[in-house]
Amino acid sequence: MAIITLTTDFGEKDHFAGAIKGAIYSELPEVRIVDISHSVAPFNVPEAAYIIQNAYSSFPRGTIHMIGIDSELNPENKHIAVQLDDHYFICANNGIMSMICSDISPQKIVEINIHDRVATSFPVLDVFVNVACHIARGGTLEVIGKVIETIKPIKNLIPFVNDEKNQIIGSVIYIDNYGNVVTNIKRNFFESIQKTRNYEISARSYKFKKIYDKYSDAINFDIPEEKRYDAGKGLVVFNSSEYLEIAVYKSDCNTVGSASSLMGLKLRDTVTINFIATPVTHKGKEVLER
Amino acid sequence: MAIITLTTDFGEKDHFAGAIKGAIYSELPEVRIVDISHSVAPFNVPEAAYIIQNAYSSFPRGTIHMIGIDSELNPENKHIAVQLDDHYFICANNGIMSMICSDISPQKIVEINIHDRVATSFPVLDVFVNVACHIARGGTLEVIGKVIETIKPIKNLIPFVNDEKNQIIGSVIYIDNYGNVVTNIKRNFFESIQKTRNYEISARSYKFKKIYDKYSDAINFDIPEEKRYDAGKGLVVFNSSEYLEIAVYKSDCNTVGSASSLMGLKLRDTVTINFIATPVTHKGKEVLER
Amino acid sequence: MAIITLTTDFGEKDHFAGAIKGAIYSELPEVRIVDISHSVAPFNVPEAAYIIQNAYSSFPRGTIHMIGIDSELNPENKHIAVQLDDHYFICANNGIMSMICSDISPQKIVEINIHDRVATSFPVLDVFVNVACHIARGGTLEVIGKVIETIKPIKNLIPFVNDEKNQIIGSVIYIDNYGNVVTNIKRNFFESIQKTRNYEISARSYKFKKIYDKYSDAINFDIPEEKRYDAGKGLVVFNSSEYLEIAVYKSDCNTVGSASSLMGLKLRDTVTINFIATPVTHKGKEVLER
Repeated sequence: MAIITLTTDFGEKDHFAGAIKGAIYSELPEVRIVDISHSVAPFNVPEAAYIIQNAYSSFPRGTIHMIGIDSELNPENKHIAVQLDDHYFICANNGIMSMICSDISPQKIVEINIHDRVATSFPVLDVFVNVACHIARGGTLEVIGKVIETIKPIKNLIPFVNDEKNQIIGSVIYIDNYGNVVTNIKRNFFESIQKTRNYEISARSYKFKKIYDKYSDAINFDIPEEKRYDAGKGLVVFNSSEYLEIAVYKSDCNTVGSASSLMGLKLRDTVTINFIATPVTHKGKEVLER
Repeated sequence: MAIITLTTDFGEKDHFAGAIKGAIYSELPEVRIVDISHSVAPFNVPEAAYIIQNAYSSFPRGTIHMIGIDSELNPENKHIAVQLDDHYFICANNGIMSMICSDISPQKIVEINIHDRVATSFPVLDVFVNVACHIARGGTLEVIGKVIETIKPIKNLIPFVNDEKNQIIGSVIYIDNYGNVVTNIKRNFFESIQKTRNYEISARSYKFKKIYDKYSDAINFDIPEEKRYDAGKGLVVFNSSEYLEIAVYKSDCNTVGSASSLMGLKLRDTVTINFIATPVTHKGKEVLER
Repeated sequence: MAIITLTTDFGEKDHFAGAIKGAIYSELPEVRIVDISHSVAPFNVPEAAYIIQNAYSSFPRGTIHMIGIDSELNPENKHIAVQLDDHYFICANNGIMSMICSDISPQKIVEINIHDRVATSFPVLDVFVNVACHIARGGTLEVIGKVIETIKPIKNLIPFVNDEKNQIIGSVIYIDNYGNVVTNIKRNFFESIQKTRNYEISARSYKFKKIYDKYSDAINFDIPEEKRYDAGKGLVVFNSSEYLEIAVYKSDCNTVGSASSLMGLKLRDTVTINFIATPVTHKGKEVLER
């Protein structure tokens, strides 16, 4: 039986997510419903795009993903269903799908038109549930909408690269539960510009010359515990979703602080990478390396 | 197989909800458990009443709803099981059911007496799970309690209407994840008093003369985006649960603000509606309309 | 089919928990996944230990518990799988299991070695899911690791008892959703020291001479509601997990206050119990009793 996932900004308290699950089970008693997140910041489309992109692909092919962010129907915000990577996505055409679609071309996009006359402030319940159940029963997208070719983009999705190709200017697109600061610079994009060069990463007044593969790699376990790590300095990793991330080892926003709180890094802040043609030795510093 | 839902004030962190799910699956491996909310404010009975009222009816008939708010057994707080609208509710008799019961008469109410000798500070685990599993197996309510006729009410559930029937005085009963401010004035109640008259809605110093059916309806999409909407003014809708709600378009309590934060509206604040006998024209203002 | 539970510090917003569920369902479409908590404070091992200890035992035997707290593999943090009380636990060897293991001896412990060469910052997805699915399919622990005899302890798990055995010095190990303050003093430990003696419990400047079995027992329902209870005084119970807990009746951290906020009690604060050899009468006070 199909899996239906939910990614919304409904929060953990209100009745909205519960009502939707009840409506789905009323139509499809055997379906499996999985919460991906209900804690997207209200109306924050880029956040939702990041979350669904990094969650969807671990689900089986054929999974149906309902995304309830800024989904009220209006002249500028139509409802779409997208088939991509053999998964199905139901959402408003407000940019949420553009992050996934920048990596993988959709197989089919339809603008949903079966419910155009339903005036509702809760379209996830009144429209998306019906569409999801239609797909779960094996229905085709053409039945519930008309095929369109393109979707609405999000701004600032792709980092800027200068003409000399020695600088990437990216930005912060997500701050996670640990206060780690995720940029829009992906590993394969970075490596395609870097080639074999050394680099310096700058965020506000902080500089980094190394990118780790996991957080613990920044720690020297041969020296005493209290001397191992200066949280204020932070570290850079390609995170498990392959995005360049500025982190603090074992951070906690509410106690010891985090990359976001300790370095003052916020959503949309700039992160710059400068590439250096050949390895150089700075007096009194170690050779830059990766 | 039956569905059991959970609505509690246990929060998202503690082990309570997990322990309950384990206990239910230990008795009924095939049952389906659905979280409606664990983030009701502690001991906030009206909040829980609003949430369960607006979630339950989208579930299939026969669903069993466990409500764990202020549920410790004491001389003033007995446990009840209620059959209503072909759903089952298990909770303390502390007013939670009075919001649903004001719309729909219960089919049966029993005061649970099979566990009177269990001294427990966790009755949802030690009592409600057994009752829910009994009902899920097809057991009758009479086996687990004695039939009673009435339940405890919540105060201020129904808005006040003056003798002249030209004023409704309601109050704020819920503030949702978007900071939208929900009043106890339902659409059908409002319309039964309004008839064809115009009206003015007042909350603190804010006045509204129009109620929308959805949030986007307050926006004029023909003018440039930045001039479309003044968040500080707010708007009024009948929300998806048919309650009169004061809202801010695309609000976020943590960033741009919300109806609650921008207008300073809190739980139990008064919202007044004055009806006007015949449409009048104010100099320099538009005709009142709905 | 098996049940797999999740206890993590991933929070409610990020994609991590969703991605894990997708990966599990991809391998085992029929398994049941239950969230115990994703809101453990980041890297807070004692908190996670308290939550999993109090949730696991209500699940059926054979349940597999994945614990994702501080789980990155490094020279000091190996991955283990533990069979205990006929349940399975998969976690880092960082002390999480020491609270459960102090009560019940493990049946088997293995240090997971099938994935030593996977460099990942997301081992719950890349390692624990495979181990959980292996166990759910009936696989043995020996296949995925080498048997070890002991696990890493948590400090300050056991309260201190003086040589005269007339004083217990415990500490605060958990603060729950209601702001109730849980100590590391369990009922059976307390009673083994107490025997028949009276006692006085001290936390900061607060003193208590009685431990209740449930919160309502501190209330005298025969007197008018407003005179029944002074929240500032608090009360002491053995909570539903049998830990000594300092509480406030019907507390709410955000409104009326809680034991934690009103008394200023925090994690790791000391709670002392002094035992008194024989019941004594204080002038102007009632006889100490329990």
